[in-house]
Amino acid sequence: MRNLHWVLALLLAIASGAPIAAAQEKPLVLASQGSFFIGGEIKKVPARGGGAQEDITVNQMYVQYQIPPAGSQHVPVVMVHGCCLSSKTWETTPDGRMGWNEYFVRKNRSVYLADQVSRARSGFDGTKINAVRSGVLPPTELPNVLTASHQTAWAVFRFGPKFGTPFPDGQFPVESADELYKQMIPDLNALLPSPNPTWTNMAALAKKLNGAILMGHSESGFFPEQAALIDPAGIRGIISIEMPCVTNLSAAQLSTLAKIPTLVMFGDHLEDVQSGPANWMSSFETCQKFVQQVTDAGGDAQMMHLPRLGIRGNSHMLMQDKNNLQLADLLLAWIDKHVEGKKVTRSR
Amino acid sequence: MRNLHWVLALLLAIASGAPIAAAQEKPLVLASQGSFFIGGEIKKVPARGGGAQEDITVNQMYVQYQIPPAGSQHVPVVMVHGCCLSSKTWETTPDGRMGWNEYFVRKNRSVYLADQVSRARSGFDGTKINAVRSGVLPPTELPNVLTASHQTAWAVFRFGPKFGTPFPDGQFPVESADELYKQMIPDLNALLPSPNPTWTNMAALAKKLNGAILMGHSESGFFPEQAALIDPAGIRGIISIEMPCVTNLSAAQLSTLAKIPTLVMFGDHLEDVQSGPANWMSSFETCQKFVQQVTDAGGDAQMMHLPRLGIRGNSHMLMQDKNNLQLADLLLAWIDKHVEGKKVTRSR
Repeated sequence: MRNLHWVLALLLAIASGAPIAAAQEKPLVLASQGSFFIGGEIKKVPARGGGAQEDITVNQMYVQYQIPPAGSQHVPVVMVHGCCLSSKTWETTPDGRMGWNEYFVRKNRSVYLADQVSRARSGFDGTKINAVRSGVLPPTELPNVLTASHQTAWAVFRFGPKFGTPFPDGQFPVESADELYKQMIPDLNALLPSPNPTWTNMAALAKKLNGAILMGHSESGFFPEQAALIDPAGIRGIISIEMPCVTNLSAAQLSTLAKIPTLVMFGDHLEDVQSGPANWMSSFETCQKFVQQVTDAGGDAQMMHLPRLGIRGNSHMLMQDKNNLQLADLLLAWIDKHVEGKKVTRSR
Repeated sequence: MRNLHWVLALLLAIASGAPIAAAQEKPLVLASQGSFFIGGEIKKVPARGGGAQEDITVNQMYVQYQIPPAGSQHVPVVMVHGCCLSSKTWETTPDGRMGWNEYFVRKNRSVYLADQVSRARSGFDGTKINAVRSGVLPPTELPNVLTASHQTAWAVFRFGPKFGTPFPDGQFPVESADELYKQMIPDLNALLPSPNPTWTNMAALAKKLNGAILMGHSESGFFPEQAALIDPAGIRGIISIEMPCVTNLSAAQLSTLAKIPTLVMFGDHLEDVQSGPANWMSSFETCQKFVQQVTDAGGDAQMMHLPRLGIRGNSHMLMQDKNNLQLADLLLAWIDKHVEGKKVTRSR
């Protein structure tokens, strides 16, 4: 808790400051925007209609970015979504409020949204499905397509104690849950080789940007660390949100991670959902252990458990919760202090 | 050809006007941006681990939009990509130039990019794949996953007479073809019910926007017309780029389409590729017939075959060709005159 006094100062500043919603009304000015791919490799496949083999590209990662006019004053932020979701995660919330992507841009950060390899605009390798269809491979070779049901989402995303019943203090806009369910798309990560090309591509992206903060959530929560273990060169900071942490890293691996400021964030009600495939308290405990391990290795790692700051009711989808911009301010302040080395003041 | 004198005037204006690339250097100002879903329905699926059935959402369409400050002066434009591609089609070109999405915004048009249902961020219905995996359905029930190889793309997209050999006057930036290949992702449209939910969703989107121009390309080239045949209420204009046209519509259907200004655009070298699954000259001829049918029904339909305007070398991916912004200007001028009823002048 020793690093949290600045957070409390920030909360006071937010409580007394200009209304956050006002930011939505001003025009958004961009120095530039666009999209590109990082990574990707050529794979030989049978030609359509026989004949010589042909080429397809697989394992590439689609990245969409926006750079504000003052973007060069800050370290760029790369946001990577979780299971059964796409970069839509970070955009307009299910109830139509501003997402973290635009809010960070409005706070002068260059933002890069990446669709995980095998998801959304990054595409996936469909050759195995066609091989099963044509009888070349048995059905057991098909990937297990992860599709989260509404019921699974309600439990895993901690909207309430049981399906349809929200927590009284819940921050997720459950009246718009149907819009969240539309974001939930099949997860084909079971098709991926090892190591996950998304990890490699995240490391390469950070390097291409000459330094970036990598942010992951849930399935991708520990991806920034995995990327750093592949190549830490471009990774200036790590933000890991709500996932199980790996706690059996070697001393050499911990030494690598200890050179990168790391923030882990968890929301509320970790033990208050009766069923579902996730065990968030167990995940939280692994991350507490991980944070301690990095700290012991000389690193600047911090667990930000929101209820400890008096911020109650946050779901697993905290970037879409009603207080999402308040949480974004906590991340921005952490970046300013721990990655960019600035003093946090009450005046904003 | 009777409607083409304004096009020639525009070409003169472009030739003498300010450099198009300058637009890239100015900051981009947006009144707002965001994303949402249109359509979608609930489907019952077996629960994970047995028990009662659970719900997933399928057939929704992801839409990403940007609205410029003067956007209300013009009719919004909805862009829908083709086979084995995503909305990336309209963004930064493979060689890093501005895409039509941003150019249209800079020309004060609100732009809506839709990922087709069953593609990219719209997700797909993965239940059939899992049913085959678990032995409930036979492998023949799997969808035919369309994945275009590099070789297929080179032929179908008309980059040159044979793989690796570009047309001498070709407009596609073939030195960056590898970046295009990364955009090519598996097409699962074989999973879709009939009518294609993308058609229904496009019609609903146009209505939600209180009027929009629908633009389709290749696989989706005739989708604007299909959307209009489902519900024309919101569709103010149709831009259909490079696809086979339907030529056996009923008189009632043609009467519906004849109420909507329609532009069909084709590039160059329609007969100059030796192999490949597409027959572009045949497609062109069906569209010439279609345009005539709509015209005969009293409509304002036009075939814009670029070589007839002296614009040579355009590929099938003409929104990514080196002269893509020149072509965008042709579309904008057509919208101004045929949809918004303005006079075209030489001063810009």
